[in-house]
Amino acid sequence: MSKFWSPRVRELTPYIPGEQPRERLIKLNTNENPYPPAPGVGAVLREFPTDHLRLYPDPGSLALREALATVLDVPASHVFVGNGSDEVLALAFQAFFCQPKSLATPEISYSFYPVYCNMYGIERKAYPLDDQWRVDLGAFEAESGGIIFANPNAPTGHGHGRDAIAALLEKVTDRVVLIDEAYVDFGGESAVPLTDKYSNLLVTGTFSKSRSLAGLRLGYAVGSPELIEGLTRVKDSFNSYPVDALASAVAIASLADQEHFDATRGAVIATRERTRTRLEALGFKVLPSQTNFVLATHPTHDAAQIFVGLRERGILVRHFNTDALRDYLRISIGTDDEMDSLIEVLEALCG
Amino acid sequence: MSKFWSPRVRELTPYIPGEQPRERLIKLNTNENPYPPAPGVGAVLREFPTDHLRLYPDPGSLALREALATVLDVPASHVFVGNGSDEVLALAFQAFFCQPKSLATPEISYSFYPVYCNMYGIERKAYPLDDQWRVDLGAFEAESGGIIFANPNAPTGHGHGRDAIAALLEKVTDRVVLIDEAYVDFGGESAVPLTDKYSNLLVTGTFSKSRSLAGLRLGYAVGSPELIEGLTRVKDSFNSYPVDALASAVAIASLADQEHFDATRGAVIATRERTRTRLEALGFKVLPSQTNFVLATHPTHDAAQIFVGLRERGILVRHFNTDALRDYLRISIGTDDEMDSLIEVLEALCG
Repeated sequence: MSKFWSPRVRELTPYIPGEQPRERLIKLNTNENPYPPAPGVGAVLREFPTDHLRLYPDPGSLALREALATVLDVPASHVFVGNGSDEVLALAFQAFFCQPKSLATPEISYSFYPVYCNMYGIERKAYPLDDQWRVDLGAFEAESGGIIFANPNAPTGHGHGRDAIAALLEKVTDRVVLIDEAYVDFGGESAVPLTDKYSNLLVTGTFSKSRSLAGLRLGYAVGSPELIEGLTRVKDSFNSYPVDALASAVAIASLADQEHFDATRGAVIATRERTRTRLEALGFKVLPSQTNFVLATHPTHDAAQIFVGLRERGILVRHFNTDALRDYLRISIGTDDEMDSLIEVLEALCG
Repeated sequence: MSKFWSPRVRELTPYIPGEQPRERLIKLNTNENPYPPAPGVGAVLREFPTDHLRLYPDPGSLALREALATVLDVPASHVFVGNGSDEVLALAFQAFFCQPKSLATPEISYSFYPVYCNMYGIERKAYPLDDQWRVDLGAFEAESGGIIFANPNAPTGHGHGRDAIAALLEKVTDRVVLIDEAYVDFGGESAVPLTDKYSNLLVTGTFSKSRSLAGLRLGYAVGSPELIEGLTRVKDSFNSYPVDALASAVAIASLADQEHFDATRGAVIATRERTRTRLEALGFKVLPSQTNFVLATHPTHDAAQIFVGLRERGILVRHFNTDALRDYLRISIGTDDEMDSLIEVLEALCG
């Protein structure tokens, strides 16, 4: 605590990201992709003219927005890009949710949302998940200053289909509905096609998961031009050039390789289903997942103890020490070999 | 204007960066370095293992902070890094200047400061420059919630020496004094050595100017651990990983090459002095500069018309359409060849 800090900063409880260990571990704790990015990424790095780095990048990131627009089948004017989807979310909180009315979120969802609320002085109204741990879309019809949820949700893994989202949007037209689709490429159904019809829908996405570019920090949002303009106004009052020239070139190369994208996400999905079956054989209850992780709990073995046991044997998973999640482990999907190692250790710990 | 925007967003007047033209121009409008970054940067790009990009970067950017700490001769715990010094400044405004008391700034300085004040709801008290267009340090002794100025200042080019800064810090101990040293490497005197003694001093710097890495978006701050912790709390409530893995590796390579750094900044300084002499021979009044730009005015030729005339002949400089600066042009220092072209066109326009 320092007398020099702004009053709000004294009250902050910052987000705590998953550990990035320095030693060599099987890393199943931050939902990274076990496969490398598209081969074209390497070519971009080898051939990038370093002299270009002396110049500021395009503040509007037009080339990247156009490449994304092509892949997402929307106009470039409906696309916003930022330095990771965390940045895009933070700018969206400032652009749309700094309202006198509270922001509606699920009680269990991405744990950065309450941090943003705290940072920007936004009151939060949290709704419980339903009895199958799905986001309760019906609850969001109640009055609020805005709505945000991840779909598929984290760390539960369940995603609602596009029809259910459309039904919500038919009823909620007076405030922004932000759907965070960080994990959608692993089996969810994207709401991006709905952005054309519903001017209050903002969908965010990331290059960190399905495109294996977490190290590069690239995220985006898709929505009506008025929402994109709101985001741009906040961006231009914060940092004119959040996406650097190199990251932009790499992202464009990634977007150009649909084959690599399909093959790697297909592999992750197949490994996830195989892992789920094997965890269930060990007695775990595993929530159905449309993401690159599973949330699992064991009826007789303590999750915190399994976490420690795995860590001691060189395998890192995520354990959230909250009332709702204390009995669960969130396990990112790695390669088949990595998951074999996980199962082997779990057999020893819980068998 | 959209009904979905937060109330404050409706009132924003975003920062307008200098144009990044698509056609081929002699670009003397955004204070970029005319020389490429250190040769080691190219090697980093060619050899970077693209598989590493699938992993999140170190949220604390320790390797980069250690490299900076070595070059700046401070402990790594006194260093903060971000996605461009614009981001670092924005985080600092949130960390330290969201106070009931107003923020003291020079009337003429970096034009992003009033934008941040507007964005974060900070009242601004602007003090005029002195009769030689230097920042009036004495004025900052008046009560305020914090102080920010660029040193050397932009777009005037004048910098105060370290003794003058120390004298201010002897008197002002109760609030943060932020000194933005974006241009210091071109002839200014850095206040970084004072950060050890004055716990309320924060100094920001950038890789965009003297390190020719504007395209990469890298900035930093140096200050006492309590100020660095304040910045880190805001960062961790906004975006856990603002500096990507590739940018970090490139920055470390740049910091390792003192010879290239010295040679290129020496060349810029020599060209600046040569340009100043030649502009004066054309009748311009040129403010003495410790930066990589000069601010110049002509007694008989209108600055806006010179700007247009230069643009038509393929040379882009910066003209600020404000009461104080309307008669001036800010001209970035390019290569000798580029400045020869500038002088040649100015001879035709003003000769």
